[in-house]
Amino acid sequence: MAVYTEIDDGALVDFMSAYDVGEVLSCKGIAEGIENSNFLVTTTSGPFILTLYEKRVDKSDLPFFLGYMDHLAGKGIPCPVPVKTRDGVSLRELSKRPAALITFLAGMWPKRPTADHCAGVGEGLAQLHLAGEDFDGSRANTLGLSTWLDLLVSCDDDADSVKPGLRARLNKVLDTLEVKWPTDLPSGLIHADLFPDNVFFRHGHLSGIIDFYFACADAYAYDIGVCLNAWCFESDGSFNITKARRLLAGYQRVRPLSTDEISNLPILAQGAAMRFLLTRLYDWVNTPAGAFVTPKNPEEYIQKLEFHLSVKGPQSYGLDL
Amino acid sequence: MAVYTEIDDGALVDFMSAYDVGEVLSCKGIAEGIENSNFLVTTTSGPFILTLYEKRVDKSDLPFFLGYMDHLAGKGIPCPVPVKTRDGVSLRELSKRPAALITFLAGMWPKRPTADHCAGVGEGLAQLHLAGEDFDGSRANTLGLSTWLDLLVSCDDDADSVKPGLRARLNKVLDTLEVKWPTDLPSGLIHADLFPDNVFFRHGHLSGIIDFYFACADAYAYDIGVCLNAWCFESDGSFNITKARRLLAGYQRVRPLSTDEISNLPILAQGAAMRFLLTRLYDWVNTPAGAFVTPKNPEEYIQKLEFHLSVKGPQSYGLDL
Repeated sequence: MAVYTEIDDGALVDFMSAYDVGEVLSCKGIAEGIENSNFLVTTTSGPFILTLYEKRVDKSDLPFFLGYMDHLAGKGIPCPVPVKTRDGVSLRELSKRPAALITFLAGMWPKRPTADHCAGVGEGLAQLHLAGEDFDGSRANTLGLSTWLDLLVSCDDDADSVKPGLRARLNKVLDTLEVKWPTDLPSGLIHADLFPDNVFFRHGHLSGIIDFYFACADAYAYDIGVCLNAWCFESDGSFNITKARRLLAGYQRVRPLSTDEISNLPILAQGAAMRFLLTRLYDWVNTPAGAFVTPKNPEEYIQKLEFHLSVKGPQSYGLDL
Repeated sequence: MAVYTEIDDGALVDFMSAYDVGEVLSCKGIAEGIENSNFLVTTTSGPFILTLYEKRVDKSDLPFFLGYMDHLAGKGIPCPVPVKTRDGVSLRELSKRPAALITFLAGMWPKRPTADHCAGVGEGLAQLHLAGEDFDGSRANTLGLSTWLDLLVSCDDDADSVKPGLRARLNKVLDTLEVKWPTDLPSGLIHADLFPDNVFFRHGHLSGIIDFYFACADAYAYDIGVCLNAWCFESDGSFNITKARRLLAGYQRVRPLSTDEISNLPILAQGAAMRFLLTRLYDWVNTPAGAFVTPKNPEEYIQKLEFHLSVKGPQSYGLDL
């Protein structure tokens, strides 16, 4: 949750006048998104989201992100659409930041996801994968397997301050992941960060998918691994196999998984847990005290990683083999 | 700027169903208000603000605040109105906090107030004072003169860590304030916190006054003292007499000041500076590192206080005597 940059009211009115969206009525910084500054701008024609991209987003990736969202929306995925100015521009500048006005989506993210939500997100994820297949842009996964060892090394001995022996344990798991990681699974554009706060529901149905700023090319089933981590654990750390079963069934109703994808689910889930564990660990040990954004405790992902390392096979995720 | 409390999406839908405001479309935590958690709730009938009152607000004061806002709005002051449920209730509970749904006001607060804004806020302040005269409720100023010494004492030696000698200096100023403080000025309900982020403008005209959670009974001219501090200094700390002149002229167009009020402006401005200096100092030395809200540096108000102590008289605020 973050608003890093303030917007001058006069500059905002100037900025908004380039669009056909009516007159600005208000602009409120909202607690949504961790990487960027987000504002809910109300105009006489309705609400919009204004995003200022902060330094953690690579400016050169923005045309890809915005183009991808535009493409997905055109295919019926309920995702925000970058609004274009009368001159046809969607990526602009405000308060010395790259900025984009995007459409507002109705719905709320589920604070306590149910098995029904998991079914919906599985289905939505598969639709997103299919819808992206003919998009004419790509972006490497800058937080993929090849980056994990560097992330761990950069945390240095601080890993052990979170949990004694953590560094050695993660090193060992990384060694195995590097050996076993599948490289020939069906791939394409993935969301790569489909956590509950990025998915809106309305009347029990998925009504919005937001925050495409980690989207990249990778194995589709890795995206499922991310969702198994993000959606199928209870707040006490226990794994909920019913939620996983529903998530996977929802996904397969739209895009059935290959035998290879299924057999690799445990290792992909381990990898996804490792990715979030490492970025949280990095933020945890590198965020100065008193920083505006409180980093997330990496502990949760140590537990999740250990769960995925302990599973017998893909059947542990509720798949009938 | 703060969102302290999360709202469960299901609980929100239940909560909102008691009002005649249509269906909830979204709910976003907004960076507005320091004391409470504020959400912008969009419904099929438009936007609303949902406030959850956090522990710094005394629950027993809430009926006064909400009733006062209701009264002011009825008199044409552009302030938020508490929305009532079908059963006529405006103060309710959500996420274990007292909660109220209030109307949304168009407009934006001026990030860089101009002399025109100051004229508008002066006028609006006077209208607010007059509109409150027949309101049938009251509340003591819990941050008035009688509380300042205790606040300073509770900061103890930490005051000197902000600036060497600060504690002794403030003690001396407090002694003088206690002797010179006027007690028989025209009084009534005041806003007591009318900073730029609590005043919205649209097309250059004041369109909203928000955040009545410091409102109390006190001298009207003390409220002007607050505004002189909040609106008439530049970011480099210098006093802008043009802005003060416009603010006072705007006020007097609606409610002319008495000779007594005018002659006491310097001491009231000193008192207002002292009040914000002390609460900022208190928060500064008492906020733990890593807290969610970054406290405001009290330095700014040391400078402002010294300015008000140095003025020759009310003419220093641009009044023609």
